[in-house]
Amino acid sequence: MQLIDGKKTAGDIKLELAREVEEIRKSGGRIPHLAAVLVGNDGASETYVASKVKSCEQVGFKSTLLRFEDTVSEAFLLDQIEKLNNDKDIDGFIVQLPLPDHISEHKAIEAINPRKDVDGFHPVNIGRTLIGLPSFVSATPAGILELIKRYRIETSGRHCVIIGRSNLVGRPLSILLSLKNKTGDATVTVCHSRTQNMEKITRQADILVAAIGRPGFVKGDMVKEGAVVIDVGTTRVKSDLTKSGFKLKGDVEFDEVAPKCSYITPVPGGVGPMTVVSLLRNTMLAAKGEIYPV
Amino acid sequence: MQLIDGKKTAGDIKLELAREVEEIRKSGGRIPHLAAVLVGNDGASETYVASKVKSCEQVGFKSTLLRFEDTVSEAFLLDQIEKLNNDKDIDGFIVQLPLPDHISEHKAIEAINPRKDVDGFHPVNIGRTLIGLPSFVSATPAGILELIKRYRIETSGRHCVIIGRSNLVGRPLSILLSLKNKTGDATVTVCHSRTQNMEKITRQADILVAAIGRPGFVKGDMVKEGAVVIDVGTTRVKSDLTKSGFKLKGDVEFDEVAPKCSYITPVPGGVGPMTVVSLLRNTMLAAKGEIYPV
Repeated sequence: MQLIDGKKTAGDIKLELAREVEEIRKSGGRIPHLAAVLVGNDGASETYVASKVKSCEQVGFKSTLLRFEDTVSEAFLLDQIEKLNNDKDIDGFIVQLPLPDHISEHKAIEAINPRKDVDGFHPVNIGRTLIGLPSFVSATPAGILELIKRYRIETSGRHCVIIGRSNLVGRPLSILLSLKNKTGDATVTVCHSRTQNMEKITRQADILVAAIGRPGFVKGDMVKEGAVVIDVGTTRVKSDLTKSGFKLKGDVEFDEVAPKCSYITPVPGGVGPMTVVSLLRNTMLAAKGEIYPV
Repeated sequence: MQLIDGKKTAGDIKLELAREVEEIRKSGGRIPHLAAVLVGNDGASETYVASKVKSCEQVGFKSTLLRFEDTVSEAFLLDQIEKLNNDKDIDGFIVQLPLPDHISEHKAIEAINPRKDVDGFHPVNIGRTLIGLPSFVSATPAGILELIKRYRIETSGRHCVIIGRSNLVGRPLSILLSLKNKTGDATVTVCHSRTQNMEKITRQADILVAAIGRPGFVKGDMVKEGAVVIDVGTTRVKSDLTKSGFKLKGDVEFDEVAPKCSYITPVPGGVGPMTVVSLLRNTMLAAKGEIYPV
């Protein structure tokens, strides 16, 4: 059994990006610039955005944080988004979700110019992903693909079972893994809360992705000997063993499952650290015009 | 075994649409208006477009056919598309594919206003389908869903296996069948040319969709007793039995498979007749502003 070390891989990628920024700087090019829009004072959102801004600094990107009161109107926010769309110095930007109830998240996301949608949430990017065109892929699926690539895990012809059909993870990942390309060509099954005989299906998986948000859902007897297991779950559970009084638990019962695996991602330190890095990579792609040529 | 009669169902839907048009006419409303753009003189394309225009007439829609020489420039075509986008009398329009080599099909499709994209090919519509938002769904997947609905075939919790990952059929259908709704909630597996042990997977299918374009690919021993089989294939094969010298053959070896099925679509007369009807339904939805409120 080999651990897939997302923390180390994320660190490697940050170094690669930092080197690339350094080269851009030396050659007098424009430094990639990410903007983040934060509405209101949700604690978790503040933490996420702070981590994104910090990661930008670590690799040498420019970053801009736009903070607005949770009382701003939808029209005001849409206007700010339009300004970012037109700001030539901003390569990409994100609107941190959730938004206050009086603002439509779909409207906000669809207002973002797809060329600057480094979160990959705009329907144009999702649709382009589905038909195999260049697109910004959202952070978690992109991070998982990068781990599969760097650990040279074969996907072609293998049966990949994904538990969870969320718009953010399960659905886009199911598309990506079956595309006709190097990290694709898998036979893909999507399971979810309504699936019958779940364990009969998961036991067929050469690659099993758990993204259902139920801690410890995947038990040892649900996994085939030699499978690759990717655990996307990160639920806070109480713990006497940590100072904070809680710890992150994945969707996989690690102790039971790990011994049967060829590869497995731990929680924490597996998929999680890859997500911010995916956002940075998308920002670099936007700055270089690699998804949508200028 | 019960035959799923696509021809009859398509006829029923045309009658329903004709009645709806009649009511609109009586109440002094605007009659739905579909435009079709045809570039060049490809024989098959001419046949398809003629059939779409004829179907419009049958249900009482207005229709407009715009024909251009295959020598027109991409810029000219994009300009025509923009005119149709802005033409208030046109509810929806299609650009018949394929286009001549010197015109980018992606550019043409992305130039269509998603609100008028009744073919459902624009990335915005594909992306919205994936995240479960109202969208124009392309003709074949929409037609299959309609058959499933009208024949009251239960999808929830059942294992649906789709052979084929095309952008037009396999991929969008895989999304639609696993959405959280009445014609969804299925566990969905997408198989394709790189799938290993295909028959082991297809034999698990409660609902098997064959959309791979290989006549007679699905044999009797690949199908579970009692399965629902949807055959999307329509390949012309030579035949001594018809005047034209050819007949349409599906992806399913009908004689072997049918006796094992609870339901099966024949070829011809199954999925095929539903496609034009899906386009008419989308045009009606566009006219009523039901996907994108005005």
